[in-house]
Amino acid sequence: MGSLEAERTTVGWAARDPSGVLSPYTYPLRDTGPDDVYIKVHYCGLCHSDLHQIKNDLGMSNYPMVPGHEVVGEVLEVGSNVTRFEVGEIVGAGLLVGCCKTCSACESDVENYCSKKIWSYNDVYVDGRPTQGGFAETMIVEQKFVVKIPEGMEPEQVAPLLCAGVTVYSPLAHFGLKKSGLRGGILGLGGVGHMGVKIAKALGHHITVISSSDKKKKEALEDLGADSYLVSSDSSSMQEAADSLDYIIDTVPVGHPLEPYLSLLKLDGKLILMGVINTPLQFVSPMVMLGRKSITGSFIGSMKETEEMLQFWKEKGLSSMIEIVNMDYINTAVERLEKNDVRYRFVVDVKGSKLDQ
Amino acid sequence: MGSLEAERTTVGWAARDPSGVLSPYTYPLRDTGPDDVYIKVHYCGLCHSDLHQIKNDLGMSNYPMVPGHEVVGEVLEVGSNVTRFEVGEIVGAGLLVGCCKTCSACESDVENYCSKKIWSYNDVYVDGRPTQGGFAETMIVEQKFVVKIPEGMEPEQVAPLLCAGVTVYSPLAHFGLKKSGLRGGILGLGGVGHMGVKIAKALGHHITVISSSDKKKKEALEDLGADSYLVSSDSSSMQEAADSLDYIIDTVPVGHPLEPYLSLLKLDGKLILMGVINTPLQFVSPMVMLGRKSITGSFIGSMKETEEMLQFWKEKGLSSMIEIVNMDYINTAVERLEKNDVRYRFVVDVKGSKLDQ
Repeated sequence: MGSLEAERTTVGWAARDPSGVLSPYTYPLRDTGPDDVYIKVHYCGLCHSDLHQIKNDLGMSNYPMVPGHEVVGEVLEVGSNVTRFEVGEIVGAGLLVGCCKTCSACESDVENYCSKKIWSYNDVYVDGRPTQGGFAETMIVEQKFVVKIPEGMEPEQVAPLLCAGVTVYSPLAHFGLKKSGLRGGILGLGGVGHMGVKIAKALGHHITVISSSDKKKKEALEDLGADSYLVSSDSSSMQEAADSLDYIIDTVPVGHPLEPYLSLLKLDGKLILMGVINTPLQFVSPMVMLGRKSITGSFIGSMKETEEMLQFWKEKGLSSMIEIVNMDYINTAVERLEKNDVRYRFVVDVKGSKLDQ
Repeated sequence: MGSLEAERTTVGWAARDPSGVLSPYTYPLRDTGPDDVYIKVHYCGLCHSDLHQIKNDLGMSNYPMVPGHEVVGEVLEVGSNVTRFEVGEIVGAGLLVGCCKTCSACESDVENYCSKKIWSYNDVYVDGRPTQGGFAETMIVEQKFVVKIPEGMEPEQVAPLLCAGVTVYSPLAHFGLKKSGLRGGILGLGGVGHMGVKIAKALGHHITVISSSDKKKKEALEDLGADSYLVSSDSSSMQEAADSLDYIIDTVPVGHPLEPYLSLLKLDGKLILMGVINTPLQFVSPMVMLGRKSITGSFIGSMKETEEMLQFWKEKGLSSMIEIVNMDYINTAVERLEKNDVRYRFVVDVKGSKLDQ
């Protein structure tokens, strides 16, 4: 595929401006290089950070922009150096498509912390072209950033694991929080939060979902299997729960006070931030010092951790809770996601959608 | 000593009100209980937190208040259960004189994180009496909170180690930062900061002192042996030093921005707060997430770590830089400390001072 005469193209759904409205867009795709994997997209999840990007919330958006970074698809073609994947195989792709390969982060297999990492969309590839994401018919991805999917996993189930899933798995693994018997808190029950409950429960943790209202109490306890539910405005319950948690995964994507949650942590407890928030977060120093607590955070996970997490997910027989929609529903899905009206992740059936109209 | 007829008393220097001016004050001292050690104070260091307390900066001060929690003295009498100390021995006492002994912190030998810990002054002892500190002729301390001092150490040298010294040693030990070859930053060069340089250099670290001006550059590099000096307002030097440090010990006791220092940390770097600051500290979440950095802190150290640190100090042949003064100079010392005009710790020669006038 691809020739000197006619450049290869693909069709995706792109935002054209900060309104964030997506519509069909045809753009060129490079030929399959020696280390590339050419993928036909089957499913792609919709993440809250896609909203930030298409609406230019971070002030760094370039248009047209095809979002989507929870991609599952079928290998159409592989480059001459690619031996790990074969044509017809179902594979994944996530938030990154490039890194420098020489810095200490890259050398330690945490290329997600490489300062020269290349995002799968709204970035510029090494060939100078804009990168475009997974709400598209096809993608081309360097093999290092293609994820092996364990046999027998449902592709639509895998999609949200490639960002939301590994985003919670990675810090639990890195900060020594995989051992059973811990008590964890999940702050915010959206796409990432619901993955947090699933994964932490599968690790054998006692899980408290913390939310601003009791609206999600029933589903947290009954559908997701959380052990306990805490409304952050209920000061007596919050006080009772003080000093009780080993960690909190804080998925809230907007500014919020940290002190109520720091006070829930035990000695040496960790508040792990997952939300990219551009307004400052505040705390007073004795809140961390007097219990040797940590405020920390992490950013998705490495390719290695992604594959490890998929294996864990399969072994534990977990399933994510998703709502599958077609591409022509994407703008409604964006609106609903903005209002937190989804249980818990939209996944677009790209393969089953007509993309060019 | 002590009898039913005449209660034992001692004389210390107490603040009477938030002016913080200290003057002689005579008060009762309990008889030596089975687990108590009765100590004649020889030296006592003056710490910045003493200032907060005598001036009611934290709004929790009770008067009269005898401050002082870096105490070195001679054992005058021991209780019937005390076998670890003998009369005539030189011992230490620090910021704490009591804890619950049953909570998980106490059971893990980190009684400094017990929520029922009793402070050596401005607190209430188990007998209902106010605790009083080390700027006094004598003290009575439960054996658990009496520190063994390795033979051959100069008592006036030991005093500042009992708070400032262990305050920096403890987090380096706890957070896995004792290995050689690390690159550390010391933010603020006061009593705790100078200990930080001494201890971190003795661990074999490359140390950068970070300060708001270049006033202390010469002394940091020449007198203390720091490897590098960074002025926080010099943006080009700060930028050059980005992503270079494994940890920063932040000793600044007043509000300050965290982001310039977070940006100096490498992947997985730790910003360790040492200053009790009641105004909120701020940061934006991507600053920690994108390098998996931690904002943390710790609070003095355990009794076990204190003795470990004294052993380390002796083995490495270190010396603290102190200015020895008499008790009648204490109010001037407080004024000078408030202006950061001391290299680097005042130690009062209590034994050599007339206390009752």
